[in-house]
Amino acid sequence: MTRKLWGGRFTKKTDPLVERFTSSIGVDYRLARYDVQGSMAHAKMLGRCGIVSLAESHRLVGGLTRILRSIERGAWKPDPQAEDIHTQIQATLEKLAGPVARKLQTARSRNDQVALDLRLYCRDAATALATAIRSVQRALVKLAATYRGVVIPGYTHLQRAQPILLAHQLLAYVEMLERDVERLQDARKRIDVLPLGAAALAGTSLPIDRSYVARLLKFPRIAQNSIDAVSDRDFVLELSSVMAGLGVHLSRLAEDFILWTTEEFGILSLDDAFATGSSLMPQKKNPDVLELIRGQAGFVIGQLVGCLGMLKGLPLSYNRDLQWDKRFLFSTVDASRDALAVLERLLRHVRVETSRLPRLLESDALCATDLVEYLVTRGVAFADAHALIGKVVASAQRHGKRLRDLSLDELRRWSSRFDGAALAVLDPRRSVEGKRSFGSTNPRLVAQALNRWKNRLRP
Amino acid sequence: MTRKLWGGRFTKKTDPLVERFTSSIGVDYRLARYDVQGSMAHAKMLGRCGIVSLAESHRLVGGLTRILRSIERGAWKPDPQAEDIHTQIQATLEKLAGPVARKLQTARSRNDQVALDLRLYCRDAATALATAIRSVQRALVKLAATYRGVVIPGYTHLQRAQPILLAHQLLAYVEMLERDVERLQDARKRIDVLPLGAAALAGTSLPIDRSYVARLLKFPRIAQNSIDAVSDRDFVLELSSVMAGLGVHLSRLAEDFILWTTEEFGILSLDDAFATGSSLMPQKKNPDVLELIRGQAGFVIGQLVGCLGMLKGLPLSYNRDLQWDKRFLFSTVDASRDALAVLERLLRHVRVETSRLPRLLESDALCATDLVEYLVTRGVAFADAHALIGKVVASAQRHGKRLRDLSLDELRRWSSRFDGAALAVLDPRRSVEGKRSFGSTNPRLVAQALNRWKNRLRP
Amino acid sequence: MTRKLWGGRFTKKTDPLVERFTSSIGVDYRLARYDVQGSMAHAKMLGRCGIVSLAESHRLVGGLTRILRSIERGAWKPDPQAEDIHTQIQATLEKLAGPVARKLQTARSRNDQVALDLRLYCRDAATALATAIRSVQRALVKLAATYRGVVIPGYTHLQRAQPILLAHQLLAYVEMLERDVERLQDARKRIDVLPLGAAALAGTSLPIDRSYVARLLKFPRIAQNSIDAVSDRDFVLELSSVMAGLGVHLSRLAEDFILWTTEEFGILSLDDAFATGSSLMPQKKNPDVLELIRGQAGFVIGQLVGCLGMLKGLPLSYNRDLQWDKRFLFSTVDASRDALAVLERLLRHVRVETSRLPRLLESDALCATDLVEYLVTRGVAFADAHALIGKVVASAQRHGKRLRDLSLDELRRWSSRFDGAALAVLDPRRSVEGKRSFGSTNPRLVAQALNRWKNRLRP
Amino acid sequence: MTRKLWGGRFTKKTDPLVERFTSSIGVDYRLARYDVQGSMAHAKMLGRCGIVSLAESHRLVGGLTRILRSIERGAWKPDPQAEDIHTQIQATLEKLAGPVARKLQTARSRNDQVALDLRLYCRDAATALATAIRSVQRALVKLAATYRGVVIPGYTHLQRAQPILLAHQLLAYVEMLERDVERLQDARKRIDVLPLGAAALAGTSLPIDRSYVARLLKFPRIAQNSIDAVSDRDFVLELSSVMAGLGVHLSRLAEDFILWTTEEFGILSLDDAFATGSSLMPQKKNPDVLELIRGQAGFVIGQLVGCLGMLKGLPLSYNRDLQWDKRFLFSTVDASRDALAVLERLLRHVRVETSRLPRLLESDALCATDLVEYLVTRGVAFADAHALIGKVVASAQRHGKRLRDLSLDELRRWSSRFDGAALAVLDPRRSVEGKRSFGSTNPRLVAQALNRWKNRLRP
Repeated sequence: MTRKLWGGRFTKKTDPLVERFTSSIGVDYRLARYDVQGSMAHAKMLGRCGIVSLAESHRLVGGLTRILRSIERGAWKPDPQAEDIHTQIQATLEKLAGPVARKLQTARSRNDQVALDLRLYCRDAATALATAIRSVQRALVKLAATYRGVVIPGYTHLQRAQPILLAHQLLAYVEMLERDVERLQDARKRIDVLPLGAAALAGTSLPIDRSYVARLLKFPRIAQNSIDAVSDRDFVLELSSVMAGLGVHLSRLAEDFILWTTEEFGILSLDDAFATGSSLMPQKKNPDVLELIRGQAGFVIGQLVGCLGMLKGLPLSYNRDLQWDKRFLFSTVDASRDALAVLERLLRHVRVETSRLPRLLESDALCATDLVEYLVTRGVAFADAHALIGKVVASAQRHGKRLRDLSLDELRRWSSRFDGAALAVLDPRRSVEGKRSFGSTNPRLVAQALNRWKNRLRP
Repeated sequence: MTRKLWGGRFTKKTDPLVERFTSSIGVDYRLARYDVQGSMAHAKMLGRCGIVSLAESHRLVGGLTRILRSIERGAWKPDPQAEDIHTQIQATLEKLAGPVARKLQTARSRNDQVALDLRLYCRDAATALATAIRSVQRALVKLAATYRGVVIPGYTHLQRAQPILLAHQLLAYVEMLERDVERLQDARKRIDVLPLGAAALAGTSLPIDRSYVARLLKFPRIAQNSIDAVSDRDFVLELSSVMAGLGVHLSRLAEDFILWTTEEFGILSLDDAFATGSSLMPQKKNPDVLELIRGQAGFVIGQLVGCLGMLKGLPLSYNRDLQWDKRFLFSTVDASRDALAVLERLLRHVRVETSRLPRLLESDALCATDLVEYLVTRGVAFADAHALIGKVVASAQRHGKRLRDLSLDELRRWSSRFDGAALAVLDPRRSVEGKRSFGSTNPRLVAQALNRWKNRLRP
Repeated sequence: MTRKLWGGRFTKKTDPLVERFTSSIGVDYRLARYDVQGSMAHAKMLGRCGIVSLAESHRLVGGLTRILRSIERGAWKPDPQAEDIHTQIQATLEKLAGPVARKLQTARSRNDQVALDLRLYCRDAATALATAIRSVQRALVKLAATYRGVVIPGYTHLQRAQPILLAHQLLAYVEMLERDVERLQDARKRIDVLPLGAAALAGTSLPIDRSYVARLLKFPRIAQNSIDAVSDRDFVLELSSVMAGLGVHLSRLAEDFILWTTEEFGILSLDDAFATGSSLMPQKKNPDVLELIRGQAGFVIGQLVGCLGMLKGLPLSYNRDLQWDKRFLFSTVDASRDALAVLERLLRHVRVETSRLPRLLESDALCATDLVEYLVTRGVAFADAHALIGKVVASAQRHGKRLRDLSLDELRRWSSRFDGAALAVLDPRRSVEGKRSFGSTNPRLVAQALNRWKNRLRP
Repeated sequence: MTRKLWGGRFTKKTDPLVERFTSSIGVDYRLARYDVQGSMAHAKMLGRCGIVSLAESHRLVGGLTRILRSIERGAWKPDPQAEDIHTQIQATLEKLAGPVARKLQTARSRNDQVALDLRLYCRDAATALATAIRSVQRALVKLAATYRGVVIPGYTHLQRAQPILLAHQLLAYVEMLERDVERLQDARKRIDVLPLGAAALAGTSLPIDRSYVARLLKFPRIAQNSIDAVSDRDFVLELSSVMAGLGVHLSRLAEDFILWTTEEFGILSLDDAFATGSSLMPQKKNPDVLELIRGQAGFVIGQLVGCLGMLKGLPLSYNRDLQWDKRFLFSTVDASRDALAVLERLLRHVRVETSRLPRLLESDALCATDLVEYLVTRGVAFADAHALIGKVVASAQRHGKRLRDLSLDELRRWSSRFDGAALAVLDPRRSVEGKRSFGSTNPRLVAQALNRWKNRLRP
């Protein structure tokens, strides 16, 4: 068994069940590379500050470099016997670098060390998530551009509301995801803070140089308070919050796409390579990928709750409860990245069922709002126009007619303000073209938005 | 790659990323034994009902028995290439039993099959959890019996409130855990319902016999509605709710024990084998196990939320979102069982620091309430007695005295009802002995409770 | 300001902001009736046990009776100046009954008192919830009976799967809700436990009779441990868990109904009295009630999390954090009851769009599974039949045909097992009638289930 | 009853239960001022763009101004009969401004209107929260400055770890809260985006000028996509996330303070005006305020979960489920502001029990780490020094001695590196003074930090 980093004062061996219960190696092996990077910076600093000799510092860095290479080429495996990743790396280093390894932990505690590792991990995770989101945004923009002229019903309350461009709705998801990217960037400000040098909680009496370590590890900020530095997991919480929001976004997109691929809506179809079948019903083609993404929102919300619940009521400073943070964090990052990756590919293979869309646009009073605004431009107060058209719709329904089946004469029975232009208003394509406000579904404005996004998302 | 259970209508191969994303084998391999047990019952029924021949049924059962044995002796490994556990078992069975294996899925869908597997798993998990809770209860009773005479302060608002027997508080945890056992038993009623025979969602046109399968698998109830049968995950939710409550209980016990092992409270000490040290501070002895148990409450709450969030707003009947249920469930069951196991051992090695306790009992007005009740028995209205003793306490504090430092004369300056017996009331041991109400901390009543629990918990 | 129940030892007045912050009267006024009922039982017991005289006991009960009547006729208002409901009732009683009121609190603390009040409230709430659920079940059964012959597509993955009776799906909700009723009944066992007599946490030295109080208040069980009695909120957690499950059920039903009332599905329409319009789009008819019910699942999950999070890591015994429990509990009970009440009325006014349903049943291979089972009855192994029909479906789709457009000749090109009966199998009504398994959508079995439920739900 | 903003097409009156169930007026009355402010900007724009005449615009603004004044002086009350706040304000405006009021809703829907109201509310709430946090930070800095020389044990795992300055730990809370302020500022970027002009979801055909409205309402950004604009509630989620993090911070501070006010720790005492008593135990002085703050973390986590759960799986664009957002948001903002306000006052009245602290500092090996670093400076490898001191501590304990009771001779039996300076190291004050690293508990560095904060927090 790997020697512990503590134990001098203990007279009994740890209970094997306790070993297993408190071991974190199964979870934190992915911190190995960050742990080594942090140790390399720490070792360089120890040498520079004369806490160890330069020769010792070189030997430590040399040994750590070999471990890092081993990790990077996948040759390094977690040792289930080790208490944690720090312990295992320490043991390896003792083998590679000899007794000097026993100086590496000088002026450092696992408390500030694991905080550093976790921050380095979060930094990479935030970057990777932003990159993955960008790919999904690009796929959405591509899909929107491919079908840029396609008109579908826009829905409120899941009832057909007004004609919109499909591209317009696809860009709505792009906007949603952009907020996630923004929040990731903001979170970076609070991730990129160096905790090392806080030691256990009080700092150290040895002449360390935290600024130098910060420069080596590219941290623009240094934790100002050693107690806070070892007990703070806000950066984990914040990243988890962003991923919870992202998960909700993906669940909304998934819900729309699941609806759109139903026989009833029939707006989209998935490529066979992105659907699955049934073990009983041979005709089925199921959007399992989208369902798993929708369900994943539950997962990421739950992990955020886990992290919040774990932190609630914890006294300062470090407590072992914090070990749970890694489990919440890693599983959420993995799930989020996987979902983004598969979604991006799925989006690249979606087909819009253009031939089936007219059916959705013809069947009801989809353009009634345009008729209201038509009356407004003819001087009718909005509320009166709204009430009037409401009655026209109801009357038409009672007579089994659609709004657009009404003749001009019939319309004029309701108001003399109607003229020949009124009927034209009821065409879905005319409806979207008639929109003028910034941000609306007007095709020219949507084309501009598409271009804006294409430029912005250029890798 | 293992052949899929579907695919006839598909003209393209599934995208590899989709394969990986939708694969559940990494999680559901632990359902293997239940899947096989369910299939054995199903195969027997198919034979008995003439849907396959008796010879075919025997062959199926024979092949499945071999798979079960392989699982039970740990020789069966999940195949990362398989879509799910059902697919892998089917493939294995085809190798072992030949073409007849292709009849096993008759009158069955993965929808009802996985519901069955999960219920069989939950049944075992509920039993295992109850057993593990019982062990912790026994350890608590043992500890209480060992230290049955020990008086400590009882706390409200974490302020010393009244003297109690330590054993009395330990039995409070036993009561809490008993409710978890009760709830597990109640949950069993809704776990032990046979879903098989619901097929995909509508039932089957083949002449199956669900009652026979229920008898074979020892299910007292049969799901009454096939649509409900495949979309219901209430039994997972309920088990998760019970475990969330259990997790909260354990976190409260852990919090108390963490407090009690501080230098400041000094009521308990952990065995070295159940504590851990510090990588920086050589004198530290930390209650990591208890902290991990406390933090685990966050985890189990989060998993429950995950399950609730996943189910929220799902249309009937089966949706792939449900695949997440296994992840929530398994991780919670594992964490709960581990925590109970390690806690039981920890409790068996706890030492009560009896020599340090007097300090906690002497320093303040711990028996003030007894003095109030003393006055009540001498005819003072409770509210008046309460106000009076409040003033006595405040006055004593102002004069730097403890309540029990007051002489009878001093007391009588406050009320003539005080007599010689008053001073005796202020002894902590007398206080607990003076309690008379059922359920109180009176030593005789606590001894009775200990006996009741010993009998009840006899394995 | 109402006099506090404590304060003797305090030399300063409470800060007004603290008064407001710690006051619970805005939330717990609804406990008033239970508080008085509990006090009446307590006062009777005090007299019976000789702790107060019988005359005093009568006077206390008399005063409390007057307060109870005032509460019941709505004349009693919470006093925003009072710290809590107990304090206000105490003050009122002092006015009504004179000095004897100062004896009511004898052998009692607010800790056991509020636990009692809350249990009495939960008991009523559980009953009221069960009653409200029963009403929704009845409305579902009524709706199912009204449209008992109607066939719709059953969905898995929101893709049309197999023909089912609408009544069968409506009964699936009835089954779901029945589990909530069962869980409420089970929760009652842990609600109906008398905490009174635990006093602050240690019991009392006065000769109280808890069994007598339990009988008066109809509690079958008495809390066995005084420390547990004042710190236990499991009954709140359990009731909240049941309501979270109920909320999820209602959200699933709401989701289905929202889908079914879309123009695209067109299975149901809401009565105008149960829908709302748009301030802009005059043609809209929105299922707001159902959407609010769906969204409410988020709320009830959140309140459960609040309660779990509040309890996590709390040391024994009573802590003021527990005051939050009432807020979680009351708001969840209110929301749940409101949702059930409005849903029941909505269900009684839903109309099934029978004339629009054929469209949903004709358009695809809805009965493909029946064709698979047809082949199974003709001796084809299930897996082979499944693969074969999968290919038939795919081929038909490629040729722009529906399954039922195929002629017998065309079918026989795929397998010689097809005969004249094959084509008949593809009729949706034949499909549901052909089901034979217990719990299936077979009309005869569904009719039996309807009768079972009618009898069971008879008020 | 107030006339609805819709209803033209409806032939039946809304069911009274539905009225009540869907009414939001009880919750959203606090949006009234924002609704009017938004309407004023909208009315100005309508006039400027010629959609209504300038005279009409003036009349609308005039009427709205009167309503705003009425709201600001508290004279405006929610009408329980109104469907929502928009409807009630519309009705009032019709009374005040006459028929022109019926033009106000032109080119606007409640969907974009309520999104605007909510954003204006969130902007104010974020500012108010930041201000309230700043006040708590100031109170912490004040307390730290008052007791700047006080040394206490710093804790890890709730075990005494190393001596620290109390001020250092108080500044740790200041750092934590600063991150909440930063996050509020970042959230502002995503709050301050104008949704108005999105209309129902598609934009409008009328020639509105959204930039002008944005300028009037001081929004630096305009929502780029009308569909996203009406379905986005990310700003609510983000604000809720920040408040959940804040709630966790407050719960940690509360936990520490509750511990510190126990008789056992005895570090702090609360002013009588900020503590409460017991209805049974006259000697009690309870930290109820802190307990309620600790418990509140559960509440704010729950509300965040509610919001996430409500949004999960919602299709675009607007759905009525969103109405729940206000309930989550408002209750969390209220609770957070109340807690901050009461905490600030409590902190200003806390007393540090300086006379009781020596006891905490003497009793164990609090400075063992300093001895390790002492050996490091004498050339012992850190790991060897750590192991050695661990053995010294254990040996001293076995002999019933404290570390500082050891003589130099005794120390030198363990290592010849010990010299006269070794014993001095074991003094707690020397320990904090000996720390040299930036961010450590060194008194000079803490004094600098105090000054930094004083300047930064200057109002």
